[in-house]
Amino acid sequence: MRVIDNISGLKAIIRAQKAAGRTIGFVPTMGYLHEGHLSLARASVAENDFTVISIFVNPIQFGVNEDLDKYPRDFAGDTAKAESCGVDVIFMPSVQEMYPAGYSTYVELSGEITGKLCGKSRPGHFRGVVTVVTKLFNLVEPDKAYFGQKDAQQAVIITRMARELNMNPEVVTCPIIREPDGLAMSSRNVYLNTEERKAALVLSSSLFQAEAGIRAGERNAERILAGIVKNIKEESIAQLEYASLVNAETLEDVKLIKGKVLIALAVKFGRTRLIDNIAVEV
Amino acid sequence: MRVIDNISGLKAIIRAQKAAGRTIGFVPTMGYLHEGHLSLARASVAENDFTVISIFVNPIQFGVNEDLDKYPRDFAGDTAKAESCGVDVIFMPSVQEMYPAGYSTYVELSGEITGKLCGKSRPGHFRGVVTVVTKLFNLVEPDKAYFGQKDAQQAVIITRMARELNMNPEVVTCPIIREPDGLAMSSRNVYLNTEERKAALVLSSSLFQAEAGIRAGERNAERILAGIVKNIKEESIAQLEYASLVNAETLEDVKLIKGKVLIALAVKFGRTRLIDNIAVEV
Repeated sequence: MRVIDNISGLKAIIRAQKAAGRTIGFVPTMGYLHEGHLSLARASVAENDFTVISIFVNPIQFGVNEDLDKYPRDFAGDTAKAESCGVDVIFMPSVQEMYPAGYSTYVELSGEITGKLCGKSRPGHFRGVVTVVTKLFNLVEPDKAYFGQKDAQQAVIITRMARELNMNPEVVTCPIIREPDGLAMSSRNVYLNTEERKAALVLSSSLFQAEAGIRAGERNAERILAGIVKNIKEESIAQLEYASLVNAETLEDVKLIKGKVLIALAVKFGRTRLIDNIAVEV
Repeated sequence: MRVIDNISGLKAIIRAQKAAGRTIGFVPTMGYLHEGHLSLARASVAENDFTVISIFVNPIQFGVNEDLDKYPRDFAGDTAKAESCGVDVIFMPSVQEMYPAGYSTYVELSGEITGKLCGKSRPGHFRGVVTVVTKLFNLVEPDKAYFGQKDAQQAVIITRMARELNMNPEVVTCPIIREPDGLAMSSRNVYLNTEERKAALVLSSSLFQAEAGIRAGERNAERILAGIVKNIKEESIAQLEYASLVNAETLEDVKLIKGKVLIALAVKFGRTRLIDNIAVEV
């Protein structure tokens, strides 16, 4: 496995792989790798001849009061984990390499798809995400790119962007990986103290309960959401940011559950903001 | 030469060319081809194994009161001209093929580079241009893409976009092609009546005079521009939109001429808006 920190080095490797006719899989991450990331890396290694993982804490997807500066990093751990999965290249560029002085080009999606859910409390977040993903797709030229369902809105937006801009990579969305007690894996879980870690189970337990309700025949979105809100309010240190039930592809609000829907939550514990979701098809 | 109107047909051709190891040159146009376009096509044919020209009147780069509906079209003429240059494929998609219902993804450059010159009177124009060019680059996957210096701001913006988004195509800018009397070739010249056609010479003659002044030692941008404005005002039916002297790469206004500068004009004759420019290096 090679660790590359500059664009020209990466491009030389990609050119050689392309010339040899090898397929390329790509896993973009912000590092501090956990089993969720590794499940993407393993899928890429299984389905492609050559796998690149990027580790880049992308400043333009963080708001001014967000956790850019304290976002957790672990270079040694990440390298060992990526290598154990069979990753071929880690691309770890500097901010200067990705956004030279005077940088000015951005990709954006208009409309509700980026303005609701996480987009509502994080203006500019998805612009930052799709811009860096566009750059990374152009650099890595993958046949397939892997994203986690944990960031459900991001996966929907990137899938749409790739289709609308006629990008070549196939966008693959992989299932959420959870801790044994149900908490969705996230690099930000490291921020939680013992009390918050315990309280954070309310996200997954509420979602599981909602799913069970739908499986039992409930089709009224308002009642499903009311149940979730009640659960979260009972957890005194949990501050609900949103609980939404939306069409899984368009992210439009759903009243009567039909087809594939997404139930998505954002909840804060102290200064730590966690998200989780579950997709249900009826 | 093949004429292709759908994305899947184009992608099959591109895949075959790539698999055969051939280099691809690309000339994006809005059709109604003139010698300016053909000079780009000839450069592409000379420098690449395979040349694609696109003909697409891109609706998202036109403002509401602009000439989208009456933009001149000549399919038979364009086909014959492209074939005579050795072009391999004409890609002529429908609006629906490029922008399906609900289309939402756009590329934008922030800052002065898009907000001045033509960007000032045509808000959203360059967003439309760089979005369609991004889509076409992803579809055609060219090694080199050819643009005319006639649209100087467009060439600068596309060059910057390609660099900043780490796109693979090399952006090549080719010289302005002029009529024997100096008028820069443009599909919009067909709009001009006899009186306007004669008056339109004031663009090139003003620019040539400005260039001669600089060559003779003038370095004061204000004086150069005053000379141009005076010339244009003397042409009674010419309405000056802008006359600017800017750094040829950053498009920042220049006071004292130094390095490579661009003198750029937009002038209206009746409802027809013409642009022209000249680059001078001192």
